[in-house]
Amino acid sequence: MGKMILVGAEGTIGRAVADLLGADHDLIRVGHSSGDMTVDLGSKASIDTLFGRIGGFDALVSAAGPSRFGKVDEAGDADFRESIHYKLMGQVNLVRVGLQSVADNGSFTLTSGLLAREPWPGTAPTAMVNAGLEGFVRAAALDAGRGIRINVVSPILVTETAEQMGMDTAGTMSAVQTAAAYRIAVEGEMTGKVIDVRDIS
Amino acid sequence: MGKMILVGAEGTIGRAVADLLGADHDLIRVGHSSGDMTVDLGSKASIDTLFGRIGGFDALVSAAGPSRFGKVDEAGDADFRESIHYKLMGQVNLVRVGLQSVADNGSFTLTSGLLAREPWPGTAPTAMVNAGLEGFVRAAALDAGRGIRINVVSPILVTETAEQMGMDTAGTMSAVQTAAAYRIAVEGEMTGKVIDVRDIS
Repeated sequence: MGKMILVGAEGTIGRAVADLLGADHDLIRVGHSSGDMTVDLGSKASIDTLFGRIGGFDALVSAAGPSRFGKVDEAGDADFRESIHYKLMGQVNLVRVGLQSVADNGSFTLTSGLLAREPWPGTAPTAMVNAGLEGFVRAAALDAGRGIRINVVSPILVTETAEQMGMDTAGTMSAVQTAAAYRIAVEGEMTGKVIDVRDIS
Repeated sequence: MGKMILVGAEGTIGRAVADLLGADHDLIRVGHSSGDMTVDLGSKASIDTLFGRIGGFDALVSAAGPSRFGKVDEAGDADFRESIHYKLMGQVNLVRVGLQSVADNGSFTLTSGLLAREPWPGTAPTAMVNAGLEGFVRAAALDAGRGIRINVVSPILVTETAEQMGMDTAGTMSAVQTAAAYRIAVEGEMTGKVIDVRDIS
């Protein structure tokens, strides 16, 4: 199925995506500080370097990009700035730069999150960037050309993450279940779509 | 109906909002370079100064914040950066700073745009920030407290703007019709809502 770049390969979702798709794809695992290659999503130059080293590829999955939480009147300038810099523009720049070397009929799959459409209190910076990613993907897919598809998976809280944080796991979805949404995005035919993980389990 | 700050008062929509709401509200017209007061939405310090001068208020309407167009593979770093800086974070910062001095049961009404949910080709930076604004408003409304409401109006292409640009005016909506959505946001009881102008005409 060709060469697939997995950014965020060391994360909870990323590892499950690697397990699910690694057998059928030639995976390049990219992390912030570990993996086959590393990238700093906050640096466009680092993203340029990454794609320069990889050359042509068929699919990119990003399960990366940290963002911040905080009530609208308590979150600081840095919470908004860093959320934009990493989760939003980091992933947007993976598409912008990657479009130069992705194969015809290739695909990009980014990660937003349920808070884009169903926020909780205290989540303003993350809700903002998640929604921005969804708007970007809908628009960018119209421009891509060459049969290239661009989608975004919207996970809900992952069970393993909830357990690590000592949170209630009711209403969560396991990383393995979540990874199935990325398979649909990579191997399916949709483009410009927000894939809500609750719709595919 | 109390003191209302209108940011973007010199724009096509802003002037129509002033005409519609000026009779019933004590309007403070704020522009980039003209009006009762001026503000640089790209500068948090300028926004701080604005609210410091105004003191308490009951409603803020923003019909301001320029953003950029461009296909995903042609729009430059500056197109994304400036769209984020002015239309997205400029309006977000009006809420963040204004929350410190808005009256109980006051309101904030921002402006996004149809491209957030129904993009055209070549609109990626604007679609991204419009969607981000909608995600922000849904989340921020949950945090506001004191009866404060936060909404965003999503206009379609305004007839007068289309005429100025020599574009087809089919499917556009006049500034006066568009302004009606802002009245509903200011005088109604909703919060955390995206008000699509097509739903209220």
